[in-house]
Amino acid sequence: MKDLTLSATRIAEITGGRICGDAGRTVNGIAGIRDAKSDQLSFVGSKKFEEQLANAASGIILVCPDLADADASNRTIIVCDNVDIAFAKIAALYAEEAPAAVPGVHPSAVVDPTAKLGENVSIGANAVIERDAVIGDNTVIGAGCYIGHEVKIGCNSTLSPNVTVMYRCIIGNKTIIHSGVVIGADGFGFIPGPQGLIKVPQTGIVQIDDDVEIGANTTIDRARFGCTRIKSNVKIDDQVMVGHNVSVGESSILVAQCGIAGSTVLGRGVIIAAQAGINGHITLGDGVQVAGQSGVVKSLPAGSIVVGGPAESQRDFIARITLPKKVGKLEAKIKELEAKLAELKKLASEQ
Amino acid sequence: MKDLTLSATRIAEITGGRICGDAGRTVNGIAGIRDAKSDQLSFVGSKKFEEQLANAASGIILVCPDLADADASNRTIIVCDNVDIAFAKIAALYAEEAPAAVPGVHPSAVVDPTAKLGENVSIGANAVIERDAVIGDNTVIGAGCYIGHEVKIGCNSTLSPNVTVMYRCIIGNKTIIHSGVVIGADGFGFIPGPQGLIKVPQTGIVQIDDDVEIGANTTIDRARFGCTRIKSNVKIDDQVMVGHNVSVGESSILVAQCGIAGSTVLGRGVIIAAQAGINGHITLGDGVQVAGQSGVVKSLPAGSIVVGGPAESQRDFIARITLPKKVGKLEAKIKELEAKLAELKKLASEQ
Amino acid sequence: MKDLTLSATRIAEITGGRICGDAGRTVNGIAGIRDAKSDQLSFVGSKKFEEQLANAASGIILVCPDLADADASNRTIIVCDNVDIAFAKIAALYAEEAPAAVPGVHPSAVVDPTAKLGENVSIGANAVIERDAVIGDNTVIGAGCYIGHEVKIGCNSTLSPNVTVMYRCIIGNKTIIHSGVVIGADGFGFIPGPQGLIKVPQTGIVQIDDDVEIGANTTIDRARFGCTRIKSNVKIDDQVMVGHNVSVGESSILVAQCGIAGSTVLGRGVIIAAQAGINGHITLGDGVQVAGQSGVVKSLPAGSIVVGGPAESQRDFIARITLPKKVGKLEAKIKELEAKLAELKKLASEQ
Repeated sequence: MKDLTLSATRIAEITGGRICGDAGRTVNGIAGIRDAKSDQLSFVGSKKFEEQLANAASGIILVCPDLADADASNRTIIVCDNVDIAFAKIAALYAEEAPAAVPGVHPSAVVDPTAKLGENVSIGANAVIERDAVIGDNTVIGAGCYIGHEVKIGCNSTLSPNVTVMYRCIIGNKTIIHSGVVIGADGFGFIPGPQGLIKVPQTGIVQIDDDVEIGANTTIDRARFGCTRIKSNVKIDDQVMVGHNVSVGESSILVAQCGIAGSTVLGRGVIIAAQAGINGHITLGDGVQVAGQSGVVKSLPAGSIVVGGPAESQRDFIARITLPKKVGKLEAKIKELEAKLAELKKLASEQ
Repeated sequence: MKDLTLSATRIAEITGGRICGDAGRTVNGIAGIRDAKSDQLSFVGSKKFEEQLANAASGIILVCPDLADADASNRTIIVCDNVDIAFAKIAALYAEEAPAAVPGVHPSAVVDPTAKLGENVSIGANAVIERDAVIGDNTVIGAGCYIGHEVKIGCNSTLSPNVTVMYRCIIGNKTIIHSGVVIGADGFGFIPGPQGLIKVPQTGIVQIDDDVEIGANTTIDRARFGCTRIKSNVKIDDQVMVGHNVSVGESSILVAQCGIAGSTVLGRGVIIAAQAGINGHITLGDGVQVAGQSGVVKSLPAGSIVVGGPAESQRDFIARITLPKKVGKLEAKIKELEAKLAELKKLASEQ
Repeated sequence: MKDLTLSATRIAEITGGRICGDAGRTVNGIAGIRDAKSDQLSFVGSKKFEEQLANAASGIILVCPDLADADASNRTIIVCDNVDIAFAKIAALYAEEAPAAVPGVHPSAVVDPTAKLGENVSIGANAVIERDAVIGDNTVIGAGCYIGHEVKIGCNSTLSPNVTVMYRCIIGNKTIIHSGVVIGADGFGFIPGPQGLIKVPQTGIVQIDDDVEIGANTTIDRARFGCTRIKSNVKIDDQVMVGHNVSVGESSILVAQCGIAGSTVLGRGVIIAAQAGINGHITLGDGVQVAGQSGVVKSLPAGSIVVGGPAESQRDFIARITLPKKVGKLEAKIKELEAKLAELKKLASEQ
């Protein structure tokens, strides 16, 4: 972390926040709310973490508006409209820069003479660039990456070390692709034949648009024909699996270890939480949200929020989750009915 | 896509299909049923997608026999016994070939002098082949692959770039292994000891038979002793985890992100759908089918079809899924009973 | 397997076990209980596998104390207090050694002149070591590994081929990191902005302590700030995902394909079974055990044992699993009540 002292006044200026308590207090660094010491800045962005806020030792704390009345006697509270953005601004001041890529082709890289490299491109050590690949201006290809035949990568993109991009795939501008990602391996398609399973040729590509980020060890398979498509501004976490011929709409979010089966279409702004699975050949409308570990088997209209396996509405899911309690109540009622009935029967027989 | 015009007549000849509508109509390419234009061929392989068929703009459409009566007035329908195979034949005609591997050892590859390379072998840029490895005729080792000591790989196999095969593992003929796959990392075995967990040495290997395909970033761990075994014609999707000492029977299919825990034995033709988990030390008989995201905790006899976590029969699963509805009905009945009982009691007290 | 003949007497000496049956019987190798032949040693460590023990052909079998009365007429039984440890001792005698790493820097490796390499370090072929990286004595960096700027790796650690460690991350002594692992890729953090999702800089590191083992293709993301921490003696299986700012306590076990979301804290000796998912921003106390495929959404006190999604106690989980049966019984009781009520009503009306 950089050596830097900031006062509450200065932090409020940078973040646009409102100070409660001592405006002259200073910090020398940042930390999470559970770990921060009295000379460090921290943040609490949700009422959910009220208890952690109460117990915190942090000298200055950025909080969301509904925590504005937090105790500010022995520390300074700064109320911010958007704590995440506010904290990110301060964190950026303390952050060491990531090491800058060195422009040029490392002598150990293997670049086919037919490949076209833009201005200011950086090709890392032991990277391999195949025939007719095209790399745009300012793009960084990390050490050990493999860029296949006729691959096109746009400008200002960064591929971390050890990424694999197979032949003819297309990657846009300003993308960030983390290590271990595999783009354009064959989709999974087989037809039962008389002597075993017969491979269906996967002759399409993967096309990734601008401003996409892809997490470590994620795999996006090439299409059976046409393309598997990741549209602009999509953010994909680690170890996500995107099957062949899938299309993911603009600004969608795929969280870690989720999987999208072949030929499924996701609209704009869809959120698939961690470890969820989406069936093949279905459509999820714009803004659909799927909870973690859910299994979606049918198409969903825009705006649906689903949870569970098979996925259902939150209301239905809660009804299912609370079913044992409900059944327990029914059991008690039945016992009651039995008792009443027995009593009534006794009464009747006595008459 | 290749530049090629095909008439319905020619397509029917190639696929063995039956033409409904204009036999002279032509197409210049292929596409999925949702995207295909009037000069493109598409296909619909199941009655499930009848609506997409009705709305399609595709000029010529291959359909399965039970869609034979589809509207063929402004387009040509070709009825095929197996649409998947039929379409694959036409798709192959339009497909650009994958780039061919160049036989020989790339000068940047590091091949131990004791390694034995067959005829026509291709070793990609920056690949590493260790001592006493054996690579069969016509096999392709992609750029950046690591082939460990004493590894044996058969003939006509293809390893995509950046595959890792650890020491002494054995891979058969005509296998296809996609990028990021790790074969022969240590199995996961520890014994609690007085000063923490003690590693159990993993001294066995992985043995993969002929005609196996393995998807990107899948991991198959080496055995504690003996071997982890993938038998012939098994097809494994991306990000699958196969634990140590597992045995997978001939022609089985492991779909994306599923996991098989240690020492479990799968019979022939087993299908494990996406994200399912199979417990360790159990046996799944021939032809067992496990639905996506299911968790199998006990051995299953041949032919079982299971779903859910813990996995149960489809019938039991449906009963479980529909339980809230059933309980709702019981609730209503109890209310009815209460009312009737109250009425009866009132009647009795009036008598 | 090494060529070695061992008698039951010798095996009992090595393992400290007690012989039942012929002490002079010999074996030439080891195998699993299902495969072992009469000249091989095998083992059964749990009463659960009693049937396999009954059917085994193995000449000598190590068993746990509660199988001490197993039939020892045509084979020799050796009763061991800890079968796993006992078998591991014998297995070690038959095991071929893993190939030893060659000390020194392979000529094809690319090592920045500012990197500091300890004594007896081995840097594999085509590995890349960046500026100011520090590698401790006796540590092995496998072929094709990428070790980023200012990374510190301790002594006696082993990184298998094709591991990626990003800038500034810290790895301890005696760690084992398998192929395809990515340490220090960016954590997944975005803030919704007016023109799409805005990346939150991930400025922290990953810190891994001594004696940690990490399975193939696992990913551990760098912190948003501060560090993602894996404490000493933690054992992580293949394809596990550890999010940014997570802390995993000493001697915890993360089984294959599980995932821990951002900022969550696991205590000491926590066990997360395969494919389980742990929510972000929660705390799991010491010794918590989470069953396979479970989803933990809330913090858990030390010693909790949970299962299911959302995770609950084993008792609640069993109650949920057996609910269809219970509801069936209630249904029958309601029918009974209806019949009795009808009878009573008939009786009343006749009076």
